[in-house]
Amino acid sequence: MKTVDPQTVVEQLNWRYATKKYDPTRKIPAEMWTALEQSLVMSPSSFGLQPWRFVVVNDPAVRAKIREVAWNQSQVVDASHLVVIASRVGFNDADVERYFDRTVEVTGVDRAKLDGYRNLILGYIKTPPPHVKLDDWTARQTYLALGFFMSAAASMGIDTTPIEGYDPVAVNKILSLPEQGYTATVLATAGYRAPDDKYLLSPKVRYTTQEVVKHV
Amino acid sequence: MKTVDPQTVVEQLNWRYATKKYDPTRKIPAEMWTALEQSLVMSPSSFGLQPWRFVVVNDPAVRAKIREVAWNQSQVVDASHLVVIASRVGFNDADVERYFDRTVEVTGVDRAKLDGYRNLILGYIKTPPPHVKLDDWTARQTYLALGFFMSAAASMGIDTTPIEGYDPVAVNKILSLPEQGYTATVLATAGYRAPDDKYLLSPKVRYTTQEVVKHV
Repeated sequence: MKTVDPQTVVEQLNWRYATKKYDPTRKIPAEMWTALEQSLVMSPSSFGLQPWRFVVVNDPAVRAKIREVAWNQSQVVDASHLVVIASRVGFNDADVERYFDRTVEVTGVDRAKLDGYRNLILGYIKTPPPHVKLDDWTARQTYLALGFFMSAAASMGIDTTPIEGYDPVAVNKILSLPEQGYTATVLATAGYRAPDDKYLLSPKVRYTTQEVVKHV
Repeated sequence: MKTVDPQTVVEQLNWRYATKKYDPTRKIPAEMWTALEQSLVMSPSSFGLQPWRFVVVNDPAVRAKIREVAWNQSQVVDASHLVVIASRVGFNDADVERYFDRTVEVTGVDRAKLDGYRNLILGYIKTPPPHVKLDDWTARQTYLALGFFMSAAASMGIDTTPIEGYDPVAVNKILSLPEQGYTATVLATAGYRAPDDKYLLSPKVRYTTQEVVKHV
């Protein structure tokens, strides 16, 4: 496998910024977009359960409607792509069975051999540990997928913006997500920065490494 | 900036897996580990507030203690590195002021010019939107950082494992996190897979792209 040297990794992390103004004329090439979809599909998740759905909004009319309930942010319509990242609400036994059906399909393993792991997961969702609420737990997993998506984009030289400033009830309604058992957790746009995005020139504000990374 | 082609991105996504057995003799070179710390430090977060802390546990005795409260998983002690990812509990006005102090320090901008943005954030944390609970919101941001960390590692050919199976109360106590205003949200190990890790040979189980990625 081709790997990337650490200097380039750090350079890509510094190059990335939450793009506020996109060049609306530039579209992400198809093979790059396919790789970005794969970064979502292949993202890790708790127990591998993938409690999520990703809605790519291509229809300009739908994007305009979402912009209206997303603080009027222009990225929603100007970026090459918009993805609504959604988490499973009310994750339950049927979701677990669906996962094991898929496991059997992909691996060809005897379903009964998976009973130990299956029962472990069923027990976890029946009686989650005291600090876990299932809807929050599925929502967190979607932020992990967002991290893979944004990292993959930056490594290909594609700009992204994570957007929490929107009305989830309204976005859910526009995309009929609750009927499907999902709720929007975060939006992400992807495309190419406008050369005159004023945020491009702002230095990144980060606490010092000494302040946020502790060694024991 | 050097970029990575989409084929390599997909190859790296497929190469990555939640490593269960590490080669305990292999250590991550210092400059790669520095880049991995930077992936955490440079990770995006809501409003840029970085409501997190990352504890790198080097002390073998502390790692052994954490293993005891992490379902006895061997990765905790065998991997080259262990990071406990923690989120801010009780995020408040003082955290916002700290962020703006840092912004002034880094950018040299007049603090008063930031009042509009500052008041927006203060208003958000005083009266969060109905779907937002601040402790969950800070916890979600740490999963985004985890995504950046795991992606950066995979791109350098370093294995990782995200670990949710542990007792957060016990880990918090071992690292005195609550006294500092933080709580462990997820652990991550990093290092090199053992050639005989049986999970290496398991095919990855993912739903089809058609099933999780919808286009509208």
